[in-house]
Amino acid sequence: MIDSYKRYTHKAQYYETDQMGIIHHSNYIRWFEESRIDLLEQIGFGYKKMEEVGISSPVLEVKCEFKSMVRFWDTVYIIPRIELFTGVKLTISYKVMDAVSGELRAVGETRHCFLDTRGVPVSLKKKNEEIYSIIQACIGVDL
Amino acid sequence: MIDSYKRYTHKAQYYETDQMGIIHHSNYIRWFEESRIDLLEQIGFGYKKMEEVGISSPVLEVKCEFKSMVRFWDTVYIIPRIELFTGVKLTISYKVMDAVSGELRAVGETRHCFLDTRGVPVSLKKKNEEIYSIIQACIGVDL
Amino acid sequence: MIDSYKRYTHKAQYYETDQMGIIHHSNYIRWFEESRIDLLEQIGFGYKKMEEVGISSPVLEVKCEFKSMVRFWDTVYIIPRIELFTGVKLTISYKVMDAVSGELRAVGETRHCFLDTRGVPVSLKKKNEEIYSIIQACIGVDL
Amino acid sequence: MIDSYKRYTHKAQYYETDQMGIIHHSNYIRWFEESRIDLLEQIGFGYKKMEEVGISSPVLEVKCEFKSMVRFWDTVYIIPRIELFTGVKLTISYKVMDAVSGELRAVGETRHCFLDTRGVPVSLKKKNEEIYSIIQACIGVDL
Repeated sequence: MIDSYKRYTHKAQYYETDQMGIIHHSNYIRWFEESRIDLLEQIGFGYKKMEEVGISSPVLEVKCEFKSMVRFWDTVYIIPRIELFTGVKLTISYKVMDAVSGELRAVGETRHCFLDTRGVPVSLKKKNEEIYSIIQACIGVDL
Repeated sequence: MIDSYKRYTHKAQYYETDQMGIIHHSNYIRWFEESRIDLLEQIGFGYKKMEEVGISSPVLEVKCEFKSMVRFWDTVYIIPRIELFTGVKLTISYKVMDAVSGELRAVGETRHCFLDTRGVPVSLKKKNEEIYSIIQACIGVDL
Repeated sequence: MIDSYKRYTHKAQYYETDQMGIIHHSNYIRWFEESRIDLLEQIGFGYKKMEEVGISSPVLEVKCEFKSMVRFWDTVYIIPRIELFTGVKLTISYKVMDAVSGELRAVGETRHCFLDTRGVPVSLKKKNEEIYSIIQACIGVDL
Repeated sequence: MIDSYKRYTHKAQYYETDQMGIIHHSNYIRWFEESRIDLLEQIGFGYKKMEEVGISSPVLEVKCEFKSMVRFWDTVYIIPRIELFTGVKLTISYKVMDAVSGELRAVGETRHCFLDTRGVPVSLKKKNEEIYSIIQACIGVDL
C-alpha cells in the first residue's frame, strides 16, 4: 500500500490568511490532521474502519515549528511520518513543504493514544492484530 | 427575563482577520450563532434544556449583508431578535454594531425548525408548552 | 476557457464537523469562497491578475440554504455560476452537491462589487475591458 | 499594572466543537493567541502600541498538551505567563483551566521573536527601552 501512497496536498485558502498577509499559524494544526487522516485512510485504517473496530485516537499533544511563510493560493505538501508506534502510543511527525519550490515551511508532531468505545485506553496489538501490523510496517517510512 | 437581558458582545480576534486586514466575512455567521445560543440561554431555553426536552434546532438558512468593516480588536454587539415563531418555524434577525461608535456593521437572518431525537420535525407548541410561551413572548422584542 | 473548466471539489474535513456529527454550517460560506476563487482563477481573473489590475471584490452579501447534511470525509462539488454581472455588480450562485450520489446539499449566493486600490467602487467595463468581456461570457453558464 | 490584571476567560462555542462532542484541539492554539494579545494589551504593549513602535512578533513555535476535554459552553481561563524574555526572544506558557472546577484542561507554550517593519529581527531592548522594561517585569509572574 505504501508503494502507491499519494502525497497529501493542500491549497492555502483565502479564509486561512490573517492580516499579516500570511496563513494564520493555527491552520497548520488542521493541515496536520488532514494529512494524518489521509495517511490512515490510505494504509487501510481510515475513519470508517476505526469505527468498525471501535477505536478512537485522540490527540494528546501537538507541536509545530514555523520555518517560513505560506501565502494564499500556495500549494503545500503535508508529509506525515509514523515515528513511534507501540500499539498503545502513536507519534506522527509532519513536514509542510512548498509544492513548487520544495522549501520547508514547517515541521511538527502529534502524539496519540487509542481508546475503546468506553473511553478506556487500549492496545491495538491486542484489539486488532491486522491493523497493528499495517501501522508497524509504516514506521519511519518517508511518504 | 427579557428585562434583565444582557447584550451579547464579541471582541474581534486576530485569527478572525484575513489578508485584507478586516474580519473575514464567514465569522459573522459564527457570531450569529454565538448570540443566538446566548439569547436562548438567557430566556431559559439553552442547550442543556433543549437536550432535556429532546429537541434540536438546525439552521435551514442563513443570510448576511455586510455594511461596513469590523477590524481586529473591535468590540461589536450582536443583537438577535426573534422575528417569527410558530412553534414549527423560527426566524431570528441579527444586527452587528460597533460597540463604541454604534455604527452598523452587518445585518442578517437565520431560519430554523425543530427536530425531535429521531430527527423528525416537531411543533414546540405540542412538545413543550412552557418553552413555546417563553419564545412567543420574545417575538419582536429589541434586545 | 469554460470548455476546459474543472469542477471544484472539496473533501469535508474532521475539523469542519460539529457535535451534531455534521459539517458546521459556517463552513459552506468558506466553500463558496473556495469555489469562487477557483472559478475566477480558471477564467483568467485570479487573485494575482486582480492585484495587477488594482481591483478587489469584497462580499456585500451572502446567503445559504441548507438542504441535506454533509458529513466528515464526504466529497462535495461546489458549483458556482455567474448570475448577474454589470461591470459594477456581480452575483454568483452556488450549488453544493454530493460527489457520489449527486444529491443537493445546499444552494447559496454571494453579491460583490469592485473597488480600486483606494477603496472606491469602479466599473470593470471601464477599468479593464478584457476582463469585463471574459466575465460577461460566463454569465449563466453551468460549470 | 500586573496588580490589576484581569484573567482571560473564553466561553467554548458551538462552532468550536467537533463530532467527538468536544472542542476541536486546533482551537486551543487560537485561545493561546487570544490570551496572549490580551496579556500584552493589559501590560501596555497591545497591537496599536506595537504598530506605533514598528514591531511585529510572529509565532516561531507552538506546543499544546491536552489534559482533559473542554465541552461546548464551558467557560475556561487561559492563563499566559512570560517564561523567557531577552528582548530578542520571548517564550510564553499557557494553562487552560475550567473556570468552575479549576481542573486543568491543557498546557502549552509559544515562542516568538521581534521583527521591525522590514521583517528584520530586532532587540526590543534597543528598539524601545520602556516596553522592554515592562515585559521584563512580568517574567514568571502568575497572572
